[in-house]
Amino acid sequence: MEVRDCLISAPGKAILHGEHAVVHGKVALAVSLNLRTYLQLKARSDGKVCINLPNIDTFVCWELSELKQLTSFLREMQRLDAELVKRLREFIGVTNGNLDSSTSAILAFLYIYLSLFGSGLTVSVWSELPTGAGLGSSAAYSVCLAAAFLCATGNIPTPLKEWEQTGRWCQEDLELINSWAFQGEKIIHGNPSGVDNAVGTWGGMLRFLAGKIIPLSRVPLLRILLTNTKVPRSTKVLVARVKDKINKFPSIMIPVLDSVDAISCTCEKVLTEMTCEPITGDHYNILEELIDINQHHLNVIGVGHPSLDTLCQVTAARGLHSKLTGAGGGGCGITLLRPETDSTTVQGTMKDLRDCGYDCWETSIGGPGVQQHFPSSVKEEIMEVLNRY
Amino acid sequence: MEVRDCLISAPGKAILHGEHAVVHGKVALAVSLNLRTYLQLKARSDGKVCINLPNIDTFVCWELSELKQLTSFLREMQRLDAELVKRLREFIGVTNGNLDSSTSAILAFLYIYLSLFGSGLTVSVWSELPTGAGLGSSAAYSVCLAAAFLCATGNIPTPLKEWEQTGRWCQEDLELINSWAFQGEKIIHGNPSGVDNAVGTWGGMLRFLAGKIIPLSRVPLLRILLTNTKVPRSTKVLVARVKDKINKFPSIMIPVLDSVDAISCTCEKVLTEMTCEPITGDHYNILEELIDINQHHLNVIGVGHPSLDTLCQVTAARGLHSKLTGAGGGGCGITLLRPETDSTTVQGTMKDLRDCGYDCWETSIGGPGVQQHFPSSVKEEIMEVLNRY
Repeated sequence: MEVRDCLISAPGKAILHGEHAVVHGKVALAVSLNLRTYLQLKARSDGKVCINLPNIDTFVCWELSELKQLTSFLREMQRLDAELVKRLREFIGVTNGNLDSSTSAILAFLYIYLSLFGSGLTVSVWSELPTGAGLGSSAAYSVCLAAAFLCATGNIPTPLKEWEQTGRWCQEDLELINSWAFQGEKIIHGNPSGVDNAVGTWGGMLRFLAGKIIPLSRVPLLRILLTNTKVPRSTKVLVARVKDKINKFPSIMIPVLDSVDAISCTCEKVLTEMTCEPITGDHYNILEELIDINQHHLNVIGVGHPSLDTLCQVTAARGLHSKLTGAGGGGCGITLLRPETDSTTVQGTMKDLRDCGYDCWETSIGGPGVQQHFPSSVKEEIMEVLNRY
Repeated sequence: MEVRDCLISAPGKAILHGEHAVVHGKVALAVSLNLRTYLQLKARSDGKVCINLPNIDTFVCWELSELKQLTSFLREMQRLDAELVKRLREFIGVTNGNLDSSTSAILAFLYIYLSLFGSGLTVSVWSELPTGAGLGSSAAYSVCLAAAFLCATGNIPTPLKEWEQTGRWCQEDLELINSWAFQGEKIIHGNPSGVDNAVGTWGGMLRFLAGKIIPLSRVPLLRILLTNTKVPRSTKVLVARVKDKINKFPSIMIPVLDSVDAISCTCEKVLTEMTCEPITGDHYNILEELIDINQHHLNVIGVGHPSLDTLCQVTAARGLHSKLTGAGGGGCGITLLRPETDSTTVQGTMKDLRDCGYDCWETSIGGPGVQQHFPSSVKEEIMEVLNRY
């Protein structure tokens, strides 16, 4: 098997509108977050298989011979099931219930590697995304793994053209990448919705309704601040809290979910308009209004948090509009930046937010999904990390 | 005609839930606010008719003979119309469009006095309510005028019993008082809804829906803080703003109005329960939740204001829940106090709010409507003001 070295990236994910409401049958809009995960795959001929995940202090090497038995077991199995995961866990020596991010990342790597590959290599991954913050970091990782193995083995062609720095695959190839990434997500999360890997694969924006995921053809790139309040929260607890509140006050809460649904639909409509007519201040005014309204609704359904109120106040003081993204109860928020928002405002706001103890990034939403890169197109400091191992 | 001196009081009004939504066909709950207006009527035999309104620096005396012509004109008219108001305005020398609170108070006095009375008297009024803050101060005044003239002339009996400090009238008498008070409100406001005078008359709580006003039989007395941010606003402008927002985002806003409607209905249900079963902390928890939700909704429909956000934050810091009351965009807010809220918390919160530049009162909602008093039952400082003139 001829192995092609490759360099892949995939974006994170944010929920623009519809978090929680989606659990109750309403539309959600998931968007790509241009904080990306980068993966470098290099063939090696010394019979070793190595994975380096410096973000989570994970560095593992196996001898190819160690993996042989596992490969044959895996090829016998028809599909990813509990028995297979158990066998993989035994192999890496994790027999208790513990599934930390390091363990699950190794399991996902092994599963996709063994399924698609078979020779020596080093895979190094570096992510701009915080892990465990609801920003799809595991999906971006799974998408990178799937694309790298499929591309390195020639299962899909390289999309790189000499005259372009980066390349994207065709729909069919993206579907193959996405389906393997979904397997990785299953290993990491058990029962994922499939939204995160779809956003990592297709980028842009996805409409998510009743389990159905529809990538939207074109969306504008929107500048945002992403803020991590670092207040820990449990998605499960928050989802249960919303359900309780709906049961307690159905006549009050069900209309609020309907209103959230309409916000998602209105936002989708405005974003679509922005791609086919000249973008005006009015478009941004509406996007800001929708953010404010939804943030109030999210408070109403019980997933607000003082740290998120502070985020909203700090950014409002600079004329900017914010909402939580994802589960709420702490976690992350997004702040829309207008085209005319100047760097003094942006820098000042980021300083204010960092003074609150939050992490804050200036980035964008709606950017491309999984890509292959020429190394020269990737920031030097990222290449430096990837080449360190 | 034998004239009985009398001392009357009537409460102000606050909207507990449903402000603005009521304009769009939803339920609103109006409650009596135990900041009261006091009126003392004393017969005099020197042929003078005097009215003293120290709150608005208004002190006027006429000779009975001056009023004669006006009386006969008024008795010819079948009903209150523009022609009559024009004649009253000419009499007091206001011929331009100007209708300040002093002028309109005098007009309302003259109309009810001339319709029901005819001999010399002094009427002195003192109110605990701020004027022009949407708290029904003009209605409390009109209710006091109507009750005093009807009672002093024997059109309704005195409800005072020797063994009680205060007395309330029967339904039939209250309806007569209310209908005359409504005439006063018409002179002052042109086209009033009738809610304010109904609250001033019946007290307690009223359900207001599609122009129909239904007094609720029994409601509990709830302790509150009333805060006046003193930020001026125009009800007309705010009502128009809500309408614009509904037209702009109907699919988002109409469900919010439905949710507000459900809040009013849920609140009414809880308050009714509180009068017929032991009051628990849970009752108060629900009332607090409804306040928080509605305040978010009022922000969503566009009638919030930074001064009201501050009110909510300052009181939240002490574990108390607030919402705007009335038109919003500044103006007044109410903060629910629980039975167990201690005076340190109350005093501390009031100090914090005054430090923001707001006026703040500890009072209650749901108390009695118009009452007649023995002078000994009224606070000394109020009697002192009433007797000064």
